[in-house]
Amino acid sequence: MNPTQYVVALLTLSLTTTSFSQSIIQLPTRHRHPLTGNRRIRADDSLYCASWRFSIETNNAGAWSSIPARCQDYVTDYVTGDRYLSDSDVVAGDSLAFIKTVNVSTEGKDAWVFDIDETLLSEIFNSNTYNEWVDLAEAPALPASLRFYKELQELGVTIFLLTGRDEFQRNDTVKNLVYAGYSNWERLFLRGPSDEGKLATVYKSEKRMQIEDEGYTIQGSSGDQWSDLQGFAVAKRSFKLPNPMYYIA
Amino acid sequence: MNPTQYVVALLTLSLTTTSFSQSIIQLPTRHRHPLTGNRRIRADDSLYCASWRFSIETNNAGAWSSIPARCQDYVTDYVTGDRYLSDSDVVAGDSLAFIKTVNVSTEGKDAWVFDIDETLLSEIFNSNTYNEWVDLAEAPALPASLRFYKELQELGVTIFLLTGRDEFQRNDTVKNLVYAGYSNWERLFLRGPSDEGKLATVYKSEKRMQIEDEGYTIQGSSGDQWSDLQGFAVAKRSFKLPNPMYYIA
Repeated sequence: MNPTQYVVALLTLSLTTTSFSQSIIQLPTRHRHPLTGNRRIRADDSLYCASWRFSIETNNAGAWSSIPARCQDYVTDYVTGDRYLSDSDVVAGDSLAFIKTVNVSTEGKDAWVFDIDETLLSEIFNSNTYNEWVDLAEAPALPASLRFYKELQELGVTIFLLTGRDEFQRNDTVKNLVYAGYSNWERLFLRGPSDEGKLATVYKSEKRMQIEDEGYTIQGSSGDQWSDLQGFAVAKRSFKLPNPMYYIA
Repeated sequence: MNPTQYVVALLTLSLTTTSFSQSIIQLPTRHRHPLTGNRRIRADDSLYCASWRFSIETNNAGAWSSIPARCQDYVTDYVTGDRYLSDSDVVAGDSLAFIKTVNVSTEGKDAWVFDIDETLLSEIFNSNTYNEWVDLAEAPALPASLRFYKELQELGVTIFLLTGRDEFQRNDTVKNLVYAGYSNWERLFLRGPSDEGKLATVYKSEKRMQIEDEGYTIQGSSGDQWSDLQGFAVAKRSFKLPNPMYYIA
């Protein structure tokens, strides 16, 4: 297997609703032209799939359960090519431009909330294995997010991590974050027993409310799902990272 | 001038803040290759500009004042080619899919709120003139929006129009809407004297609140600006139409 095939084979498309705790992603094998071996994405599919991506990334689509069949190759190309990296680069640039307008408190009371999967870490870049990547704790950083994370720390912003993963995954999650280059966050929230069965939007809003109740101002929030960003106790500014692979309510 | 050049020349890039009342758009002349005459959009510009569009359409960018210089040809291609039509088609499809899940009240108390410029009408399709298109009242319909508008009416949804245009433009606005094929809306809100100077988000939220206070449930809202969709008294579902041309706070 070449590296690209590895990446493609690794990903497991997960359709998710309430208590999705981690993303195991598998994208389908690419279709190749029988003569040239090139990927075949028809022009009309490309046009439609770009519009589908507009639809889901703006949240116009609302809940969605699977990548349209005609867009599977398009999505594979998107995440394994330059575009996913480029889009997340621009998100990090927008986030940095915003926080530089904030007069950050010297008492550490200005906060930023990060989701983890497909926000700080992205197993899309992990060409390691087919299964159990969370146990292996080797999902790499999304490069632009790691850069922005460190820039926030230099500015004195207090960082909270808020993930839909379960409490029992705490050790592996910490290990993975450190492996990927993250350190010195203020607190890592995972779903505890009382959070089970809650919609991500509710669970995450409650945790943000807790952060605010402790006297922090949540300046920004970064997530690949709208459920990371909406609800109540929302950040002053929210930053949507790309994710055309799965949806979490 | 050929039709494409007409369209391109027509558009005037308007940078807008608080009391923007209509969109006069002008995109720059395209750069052409001196030998082939083809448009020249470099691959790295294309990659960057797609990411820039992700950034502004998700509202990650927040307020922005101009199309990046390197993206002017990209945006011209986007709006004058298939992609703008395709994206707005998919928005209309998302909107229809949602309203079909609603058990629409037989008393006409379920409402939908539409913005006008670049939502119901789009002067991008108007190859008529350089100036004063609003006075001419001949901006065409955005085709997918007109189709969805009629589908809503068949379903018994009550339609409100809510525009940042000023009250003095009422007659021209009505004339233009009728010319483009729209009819039988419940009410058309324009900015009156007491609305001057308000941010669009505030002005539009106040009008939605008024609609709700009259006993309507605002099921959906369609607009090309986030300021059409956010604030208070927001619709149950909001639908963001594409607009990489200008931003209204």
